[in-house]
Amino acid sequence: MTEPATSFTDTRKLEVVVLGGGFAGLTFCQHLEHPRYHVTLVDRQNHHLFQPLLYQVATGGLSAPEIAQPLRSILADHKNVTTLMDEVKEIDLEGKEVITQEHTLPYDYLIIALGAKTGYFGRNDWAPFTLGLKSLDEALTLRRRVLEAFERAEACNDPVAIKRLLTMVIVGGGPTGVELAGSLAELSRVVFQHDFRRIDPSKTEVHLIEAGSKLLSMFPGDLPEYTVERLKKMGVTVHLDTRVEQVGQGFVVAGGQRIDSEIVIWAAGVEASGVTRTLAGVPLDKCGRIHVLPDLSLPGHREVFAAGDLVNMVDAKGQRVPGVSPAAMQMGTHIARILNSGDSDRPAFTYWDKGSMATIGRSAAVADFAGMQFRGFIAWMMWLFVHLVFLVGMRNRLTVFMQWMWSYFTWKRGARIIIGHEE
Amino acid sequence: MTEPATSFTDTRKLEVVVLGGGFAGLTFCQHLEHPRYHVTLVDRQNHHLFQPLLYQVATGGLSAPEIAQPLRSILADHKNVTTLMDEVKEIDLEGKEVITQEHTLPYDYLIIALGAKTGYFGRNDWAPFTLGLKSLDEALTLRRRVLEAFERAEACNDPVAIKRLLTMVIVGGGPTGVELAGSLAELSRVVFQHDFRRIDPSKTEVHLIEAGSKLLSMFPGDLPEYTVERLKKMGVTVHLDTRVEQVGQGFVVAGGQRIDSEIVIWAAGVEASGVTRTLAGVPLDKCGRIHVLPDLSLPGHREVFAAGDLVNMVDAKGQRVPGVSPAAMQMGTHIARILNSGDSDRPAFTYWDKGSMATIGRSAAVADFAGMQFRGFIAWMMWLFVHLVFLVGMRNRLTVFMQWMWSYFTWKRGARIIIGHEE
Repeated sequence: MTEPATSFTDTRKLEVVVLGGGFAGLTFCQHLEHPRYHVTLVDRQNHHLFQPLLYQVATGGLSAPEIAQPLRSILADHKNVTTLMDEVKEIDLEGKEVITQEHTLPYDYLIIALGAKTGYFGRNDWAPFTLGLKSLDEALTLRRRVLEAFERAEACNDPVAIKRLLTMVIVGGGPTGVELAGSLAELSRVVFQHDFRRIDPSKTEVHLIEAGSKLLSMFPGDLPEYTVERLKKMGVTVHLDTRVEQVGQGFVVAGGQRIDSEIVIWAAGVEASGVTRTLAGVPLDKCGRIHVLPDLSLPGHREVFAAGDLVNMVDAKGQRVPGVSPAAMQMGTHIARILNSGDSDRPAFTYWDKGSMATIGRSAAVADFAGMQFRGFIAWMMWLFVHLVFLVGMRNRLTVFMQWMWSYFTWKRGARIIIGHEE
Repeated sequence: MTEPATSFTDTRKLEVVVLGGGFAGLTFCQHLEHPRYHVTLVDRQNHHLFQPLLYQVATGGLSAPEIAQPLRSILADHKNVTTLMDEVKEIDLEGKEVITQEHTLPYDYLIIALGAKTGYFGRNDWAPFTLGLKSLDEALTLRRRVLEAFERAEACNDPVAIKRLLTMVIVGGGPTGVELAGSLAELSRVVFQHDFRRIDPSKTEVHLIEAGSKLLSMFPGDLPEYTVERLKKMGVTVHLDTRVEQVGQGFVVAGGQRIDSEIVIWAAGVEASGVTRTLAGVPLDKCGRIHVLPDLSLPGHREVFAAGDLVNMVDAKGQRVPGVSPAAMQMGTHIARILNSGDSDRPAFTYWDKGSMATIGRSAAVADFAGMQFRGFIAWMMWLFVHLVFLVGMRNRLTVFMQWMWSYFTWKRGARIIIGHEE
């Protein structure tokens, strides 16, 4: 069903095609104000996803619609934006066209903001044995797999199989790995404490494997050590300086040790969307990320910008821009400002580091703001507050706040529902 | 993995196996108090589902975990109950064993409460072209299909295809059909009014087809006529006295008229779980429902009871017991009382009709209580109140209440998220 692409274009306006409705693409659409542009926003999902809370969907704390919002609904008042649910296949920089599964979209300006997916450092053969956590579908699969492991253990009489079912391995000691490890430890030790009759869920082993010498290595001071300590207290086995050597069906070998495990979660690396490989003549790093110019445009293509997790750049102040949502939003705003100026002004992008935070578990988090470091309950309250404020949509803020209050006071989780079955 | 079934049984107690964690099975487990029994509850899902609100999940008003609750969690304090997530394959009445996918479970008492599935009156060849609404998986599939139809229409340039994508057919004018028709009409006309740029979602056609001469024929007085009127005002095309003659890929033929439609929902009939067909020598009706004795036991098998939607019976007062959740709960309680008496007392079951209600749309419902009939806003408030009270779990009550308030005041729906993709 390839159609005349002109049907999407308003010929009286300059056509801006935006690929990806994540933090970068959505923020761009929200900040583009100049009436000379018509925007077509393409995403293969119908929703914007608040990725920082994805691990809570995966571990039964929140339901999927609470951290997602339909793109059309967010942009309902932006009458110059047409949203198209479709998958990008290829970008033809010479012909100034995007080829999607269903359409061919010509553009005057193009914003590539397709984000990143799970990366395996060249070991894609490990992918079938691991679970990633980059989309709602992956989060719901992880939730189903974790809940099913406990169900199968309860129904099982073989102690070896029960031990494998109650062992979970997380590879990667960044924020996602730490948050998942803490959340899985709490699920098994606290949330499940009265639910089973035949197994003891507090015997669940959660292993967190990190190749470097620290967890949360981007955090300053003793926050990485504090994180290890807290996780250990919660029952997580932390393996530092440990490389994964092999992953197969039901096991991981790391640092010479074999761990039999039903659930292996890969939170160790990201890789740019495969579409960047279709960009003829554009310099990419080994993860497929684009080396952009200081104004975020592509070398040799002033009319094409990239933003978000698929950008590899050092900004005007010499900082490496990290793959985090504040950076993606700032890039989206930066490009919108360039176009709002009628493309007359192209300053260099500068990343404003607002600080970072990660949660470890109930009443425990780490935060680093403007040279100050926080930990424990105060950091956890800051984490809750910041995530509620940045969550998109008032309804989602209210329901997530309520879920958190409820979980805090009852020690329960509301979204422990298995949906869909494995083939 | 067939295991020695003794592992599930506490040999010092009488083993009660309950098949199905719906309203009948769950209520039984909650009311069984006598210490002489150990209960094994088998369900192929890990959750109890509040079916009366399933249509709101299907139409984007609620998220799946808001109307479901893990069975283990509901029964956490009932230490005599072991919950097993497994699928029942066969019942061996002579050997007093249930054969599931993974286990063989011997019983002293058996409660069959597996519920009903969508029934096609012998036209199972229509099933692949229609969508049912009996489980969370079916509700999420329906939601995805409806939201995708609008997405595809927005991306489409062919007026014939757009019309087909924006036409929805519901077969069956009972409560489910009426609730879905009203909800889909509101979705397209109200919720979507600012979201699309290329299509006009208010042009969506919703057809409700009923073979009989009335909608909601179980309601007295002029409530059926009121329902037709309200639905017409909301933009639903109601076809009464109209039989479906053919269903195929993308179309329905009913009353001699062909309707091209992307979404055909079958809400016309139910059929007992296929497991009842494995019951040797037990009288079934043509929908596979069991003709039970007055005490709800099976003829010739005092130790086996049936409860809920898979029962076909006329009670001690001569009333036909309907397939609704209050009847299922009353049956569950009835059987629990028999066992609590040490099986010394077996009264006949009597259905207490508490009345019925169905919602049509925003501020419109019908209700029939103790000979009094209500309609419009007052019936709608009653409907909201009763469904909140009967919803299982305080957290679910709170979040559903909040979603309803939010939807009422903003005219929006929060769960319009597409999860999973069609192969």
